Formats: sequence, C-alpha cells, structure tokens
Amino acid sequence: MNTLTSTIKLIGVPDCAAMEQAQQRLDSLTKPQGSLGKLEETARRIAGITGTLSPCLAKKVIITAAADHGVTAENISAFPGAVTPQMVYNFLNGGAGINVLARQTGAEVVVVDAGVAADFNGAPGLVNRKIGYGTKNIARGPAMTAEEAIRSLEAGIGIALEQIEKGAGILGTGEMGIGNTTASSAIVAAITGADVAAVTGRGTGIDDGMLAHKIEVIAKALAVNAPKPDDGIDTLRKVGGFEIGMLAGVFLAGASRRVPVVIDGFISGAAALIANTIEPKSKEFMVASHCSVERGHRVTLDFLALKPLLELDLRLGEGTGAALAFWLIESSMKLLNEMATFKNAGVSEKS
Amino acid sequence: MNTLTSTIKLIGVPDCAAMEQAQQRLDSLTKPQGSLGKLEETARRIAGITGTLSPCLAKKVIITAAADHGVTAENISAFPGAVTPQMVYNFLNGGAGINVLARQTGAEVVVVDAGVAADFNGAPGLVNRKIGYGTKNIARGPAMTAEEAIRSLEAGIGIALEQIEKGAGILGTGEMGIGNTTASSAIVAAITGADVAAVTGRGTGIDDGMLAHKIEVIAKALAVNAPKPDDGIDTLRKVGGFEIGMLAGVFLAGASRRVPVVIDGFISGAAALIANTIEPKSKEFMVASHCSVERGHRVTLDFLALKPLLELDLRLGEGTGAALAFWLIESSMKLLNEMATFKNAGVSEKS
Repeated sequence: MNTLTSTIKLIGVPDCAAMEQAQQRLDSLTKPQGSLGKLEETARRIAGITGTLSPCLAKKVIITAAADHGVTAENISAFPGAVTPQMVYNFLNGGAGINVLARQTGAEVVVVDAGVAADFNGAPGLVNRKIGYGTKNIARGPAMTAEEAIRSLEAGIGIALEQIEKGAGILGTGEMGIGNTTASSAIVAAITGADVAAVTGRGTGIDDGMLAHKIEVIAKALAVNAPKPDDGIDTLRKVGGFEIGMLAGVFLAGASRRVPVVIDGFISGAAALIANTIEPKSKEFMVASHCSVERGHRVTLDFLALKPLLELDLRLGEGTGAALAFWLIESSMKLLNEMATFKNAGVSEKS
Repeated sequence: MNTLTSTIKLIGVPDCAAMEQAQQRLDSLTKPQGSLGKLEETARRIAGITGTLSPCLAKKVIITAAADHGVTAENISAFPGAVTPQMVYNFLNGGAGINVLARQTGAEVVVVDAGVAADFNGAPGLVNRKIGYGTKNIARGPAMTAEEAIRSLEAGIGIALEQIEKGAGILGTGEMGIGNTTASSAIVAAITGADVAAVTGRGTGIDDGMLAHKIEVIAKALAVNAPKPDDGIDTLRKVGGFEIGMLAGVFLAGASRRVPVVIDGFISGAAALIANTIEPKSKEFMVASHCSVERGHRVTLDFLALKPLLELDLRLGEGTGAALAFWLIESSMKLLNEMATFKNAGVSEKS
C-alpha cells in the first residue's frame, strides 16, 4: 500500500466524547456560558481533533512550500516569476512576514522547494522536494502528470509526518509561488462549481484589465483540462501546483495523526479543498485561520463549512494567517484549562 | 488647575510625520503593498499615537475596574449582584478569563475597586479607589453626584499615569460589574442618539422577556435623567458607573501621554464615548480590540470611527478582548520593524 493510501486509511472522525467533555468544562468556567464565542468553538474543535482537553501544542510548525507556475506565461501576475526564488531566500534569511510572525509565536518555519523554477544549490535550511521546475501552463494543458500529482501529495505527507514525529502538536500551511492564485481559483471553481469570476481576485495586486484577463485564462484552463470536480488528484494534476499538492498532503497527514492543521489563506484553502475531495473526513481536522481579501477564499471556507478565526484583510499567504491563528488557538486551550470554575472560585451561577 | 483639566490640556494630535514614515516603510517591505490589511493600519496608527516607528510596548497593562450598579434593583441581569465582588476575588486569584489571557501575552492586570458594594478588607493586590458602594438606581435618578463623576475620572487618570510612569507602553481597559451593560446602553443611546433597543443586548445572558424589560428600564433612566449628549461628565453622572468613569479617565490619561489605550468590549466602549465627549481628540489615541456580540458595541465603534481588529463573538469583558489585541498590535509593530525590504532582500518589485 502506498503512502497516500495508507495515510487516508488512518483518517478517523473527531472524538465526540472529548468535545462533550470540553463543552461541559467550558460551561463550568467563571464566565457567562458561550461568552468566549469563537474561542469556545475552537477549544471544542481542538479537543475533538486531538482527543484530549490538554494536547501539547508547544511545538508549532508552519510548512511553507514554494513552487512556480507555467501559467505565468499568460501574464496573469503583478510580479515577475523571479520573485518566487527570491522570496525563498528571504524565508531562509528570516526576513519575510511569515518569519516575523512565526518568531513572535514561537513557531518553526519549514521552507520547502516544492517545484521552483530555479536551483538553490543546497541552500542551508531549505527542504528540497522539487517535483519539477514549475508546472506547465494550465491554459494549454495539464499542470503536471498524474505521477507528479501523487509525488507532490506524498512529499507533503512525508514532511508533515516528519514534523509530527519530532513532536509537532499543531501544523500550519503556507506557500509562495507567483501565479498560484490563478491555479487556486481554477481549483476552487472546479471543485465548488462556483463561477470563475466569483472566485478570482487580484492576487498580489493586478488592475481591472489584468483581472478580466486572468478570469479568461482560468476559464480557458478549465475548458481545456476539464478537471473532475469529485476527483482531487485529477483536479490537482490538471489545474493545480506542486506546492498546492504538498499542502494537500500536509492536511491529509495531520488528519491521519489527529494533529490539527491550520489553513492559511486562499491558496492553502485550495489545497484544503483538494485534501477534502480526496478524503472528506480530513476537513474535520482543519482549522481556518482567517478569511483572505482574495475572492474565493470565503467560498472555499463555506464549502468546507469552516468559520475563520480572523478577518484582518490579509492577502499575503506564506502562512502568516496561520501563525497569527496559532496564538488564538493557544488562547482557547489555555482558557479551557486554566480558568477557575464557578465552584472552585465560589462565584454564584446564573439565577 | 485640577487633574482632569490639566490632563485634557495635554492631549494633542497624532504624529502625521511618523504615520507617513510608517507608511513608506510598510510599502518598502517584501510583500505586495497593503497585503497585511488591518495590521498595516494598526502599525500606522501606533506610530501616529506614539510618534515613533519603534515604541517600547514591552510593558503592557490591563486596568480592570469593578463596580456595582443600583439599577440591578430593577431586575435587569441574569446574575446576582453578589457576583461582582466574587469575580474581584477571582481576578485577584488569577482564575478569570482576563488572567489567563494576560498571562499568555505577558500583560499585567491591575484590578481596581472602583465602587463595589462590598468591602475587601485590604485584599492583597486590589487597588482601592472605591467611590461608593455601587451607584444609585438610574431608573429613579442620577447614578452619582457630579463630584463623584469627577473623582472617578481622576482616579482613572491617576491609575493610568502611575502605570505609564512605571513604564507601561500600552494600556488596555477592562471591567466587571453586574448591571453595567444597562448603564453602558444608556450612555451609548444618550451620546450617539441611537434607539435604546438598537444598543441594548443580553448582557450576561437574559431572555427575550427580560431584554424587553431592560430596554424599558434604560428608556426610563434616560427620560428621568435627561443626560446632555454633548456633556460627557453629565452623561457619566446621570446614567454611568464608577468603573466606566475610571476607564474614561484611563483613555484621557493615555491620550495625554501618547500611550495607546486599547478598548475592550461594550462597557469599555461606553467609557471611550464618555472620554471622547469630554475631549474628542482622545479617540485618536484609542485602538479598538474587537467587536462584541453585545448590541451597541458596533454603534459605539462606528460613532468613534474605529475599526475593530477582532470579531470573535466575545461578550465577556474584563479586558479579554484587549489582551488578545495586544498580541496583534505587537505583530503589526514587529512586521513594520523586522521584515526585510525589497532592496535589502534583493526581491524584484511589482512590474
């Protein structure tokens, strides 16, 4: 049995008993019931995922995968493709947004070359899982071969399992790749059935004219490739990306080991959709960090029935929203475990 | 010149040069311009308040003021008045929600007896600024005397200045007081001119019948007292509370020393409205942490033209939202200061 199949087989369901126990404890704490809102929902969810009210979340890891996209040949991005490798070096040097936020929250950033169209010559700290030098142009044919799609998923599974074996209690997804909002919009339109225009945004910042062109390119990619909406691997292969495949693998691996995986922004959301299409039980092990400005992210989260913790008008990716959400997830678990109960504190209950 | 007048006199305007400098730096960082959304706005705002791009925010203090409210005689709360002193002990023992979140973010909690209807007999850690044993019933007459209103404002100023002198770089407001959403709704309706029903919520969790009754009580309080909407001290005196007066003082003190003060929930918002009515320039030194479930909080923030950082469906108060926002404010300043620029990182800019 290959890695992908064996990982999927291990995915179970949330632990209802732990969720019920969490709810009972939340209701016994010195606060009006439900008054901690989404933090209470989060505490319940984490209890269900991990099967315990006090999981060890101390070791937190953001997996930031970078790759290039052949569709940039269609002139759909505000930034040149050269930015992908440049930003990989920025990640490795600690100068990117994700580095700052990960340091603040005490998380590690694992930077992965999933398929950048440049060589890094063994740059220290970079995890080399290069599937290819960027995908092919999806406006003209499939992004990758079926074998490459499986390899990208399994590489993501391998990276996540390695971190979990090292003690990671919570994972976050992140990415970098000029052109990857185009691939993501294609995935979201294919899987959710939404209009291309409704799930296509400005990415790094294109104008109205380029946005109209980007929508046309995505529509063409869907027409040329006809991805099967209920087949995650087919959709990944035809209109996806190497980093998207790896992050989909991360979601599947986390779900298989009952480790929560935090969805970052729009591209991570597209990867979550791929994982969910491959194995719908996997979404129960995901936590939505934020809702991006990028159109299509809300459609994605609604499709997955996930409510985001943050609405900060972010549109950076890299794992930045996931790193911010780590803090709130820890808040929710600390509240669950450290607050006094009405009984212990001698506080009168609701009359 | 008394403390209140001298404090108000010191309140200036945001430092536009620092804000401009912050914007220029934000635009030079390795990310698409504006892609960090509300975090960029926050960084600009903090630069304007403090007059520097790198203020020392290390010492963070939440001032949590507790007081009782005579209007509880009208049966407007789900919890008995006895809960106010019980929760004060819970704060002092570190078991409340605010204690957990303050510990997580490395903030101190200064617990103040602003006017609880019980004696604490010198309980260790409690700051005694008791103005009285709860306010009078606002449904029958003014909450307090004009002299008590001034004393509560000046006590808040004193507490805040003491913390600033000790090195606090950022303050947060918090409160506890059974009945204080009733007083706050009266304040918000009086000052903003909104309908009582539009700014009155369920507080700690009352049912439809009690909510209708609470709205009647507030309408009566406004009819009986006729607070002057453009007179913050008059409104505080007639329908306010001792803790609300102290928090209004905290906002004024922070503004006078260019120290950002983070608004917590609905009651803190009512205190911010009082401060803003006394001196409108003070609102420029406030940061809105979150938008509460409690109806009227959004009306308050809109009136102050402040956008909240978080929307977590919180309705606990105590300073919990402010403590959570401290983290995001620090995130925004770390991003501003620690991210690499396009130039330094050798990353290509938008084409």
